[in-house]
Amino acid sequence: MGPLASAQFMLRLTLLTPAEQDQDHIPAVLWSDPRVPDRTAARLAGGEDPLPWLARGIAGLQAAGARAIAIPCNTAHGWYDELRATTELPILHIVDAAAEDLRRQGIHSGRVGLMATAGTLAMRLYQPRLEALGYEVIVPPPAEMQSLVSPGIALVKANRVAAAYIPLAEAARNLRDRGASAVVLGCTEIPLGILAGPYAEIGVPMVDTIDALALAAIGWAKA
Amino acid sequence: MGPLASAQFMLRLTLLTPAEQDQDHIPAVLWSDPRVPDRTAARLAGGEDPLPWLARGIAGLQAAGARAIAIPCNTAHGWYDELRATTELPILHIVDAAAEDLRRQGIHSGRVGLMATAGTLAMRLYQPRLEALGYEVIVPPPAEMQSLVSPGIALVKANRVAAAYIPLAEAARNLRDRGASAVVLGCTEIPLGILAGPYAEIGVPMVDTIDALALAAIGWAKA
Repeated sequence: MGPLASAQFMLRLTLLTPAEQDQDHIPAVLWSDPRVPDRTAARLAGGEDPLPWLARGIAGLQAAGARAIAIPCNTAHGWYDELRATTELPILHIVDAAAEDLRRQGIHSGRVGLMATAGTLAMRLYQPRLEALGYEVIVPPPAEMQSLVSPGIALVKANRVAAAYIPLAEAARNLRDRGASAVVLGCTEIPLGILAGPYAEIGVPMVDTIDALALAAIGWAKA
Repeated sequence: MGPLASAQFMLRLTLLTPAEQDQDHIPAVLWSDPRVPDRTAARLAGGEDPLPWLARGIAGLQAAGARAIAIPCNTAHGWYDELRATTELPILHIVDAAAEDLRRQGIHSGRVGLMATAGTLAMRLYQPRLEALGYEVIVPPPAEMQSLVSPGIALVKANRVAAAYIPLAEAARNLRDRGASAVVLGCTEIPLGILAGPYAEIGVPMVDTIDALALAAIGWAKA
């Protein structure tokens, strides 16, 4: 959906795969349709329903021979159950992948910050799943969503990743200052902005949901 | 084919597109099948024919709704005519895209270096097309193909882009020293290695055939 996030997913799927030659890599088909209506606008403002577009993508991938589906867009997971009903293929869930990545980083409980689109936050896509695993989830206050997170995401969608770093890093630092022992970058545009600047200076472990989903896909392919 | 080159093509297709939001980007489907038999081995050593695999990819893309085909693998263009016969879709030619990029960089004639796979060199994919446009084409000598270019390409296919920089940059410098006013990176793995090091120090204009093909695709989509 976010085409830069989709391309980055393919890049990370390749780089994270142990390989010595082309033929060791994982066959994959990417359906990159940036015309899918805005997911947050659909959820919060009565915008056009993205479900038919998402279902068309899954049908196209299935026709192309895909055996499992990964959707490198967090907000689209608000339609996960409806999409599951349209296909017999397994659909990897990005929140499960993020939780697995928290555990991979040695973070098994406590307070974690969540940065995401307003749509993802409103749908509470992450909270019940992470709370069931023993985490406490904090999110940016509405004023910071409006002044930092949402503008940062929009900058990435306009290819301005370096400019996106500034507001996104500030929102992540604020979550750290409020006691988060890790921050989940729960919108796949966010890691693209964070990685475009000196991200280590933010000073908190982060879950890149592009990488987390790529690792889940590699795990599926190798199993 | 080279999955890292394919992913990089999607990334550059996105970043080179003028866009303010998701919906301004170009809908695209990527068929990334790293199982396609090695193109150079097929051409030079009687390896398995990649044509059925390539044709299957084009058929899959056509079924997914693609209206034009771009193949971010130079050596695969050795099967260009056979592939054209399998589809009514236009197939952008990577050598035309590279020539257009030379002109975009203000290089209209004279000696240009060509780095490519042994297969691409043996097929003389570039020479007749560039010579018809008024260029003189020089290539690395066989000893450098064996010690620098081919190992550099193999390192990229194994995800070792930083290690690939050293031999690839040396081969490019040698072409510059032999009088090339520009070097065409005529294998899409090569720019990935070159970009992983201090490429500006090589001191010669280069044509990145991933970017050249992405720009040709954007031009097609906008026309």
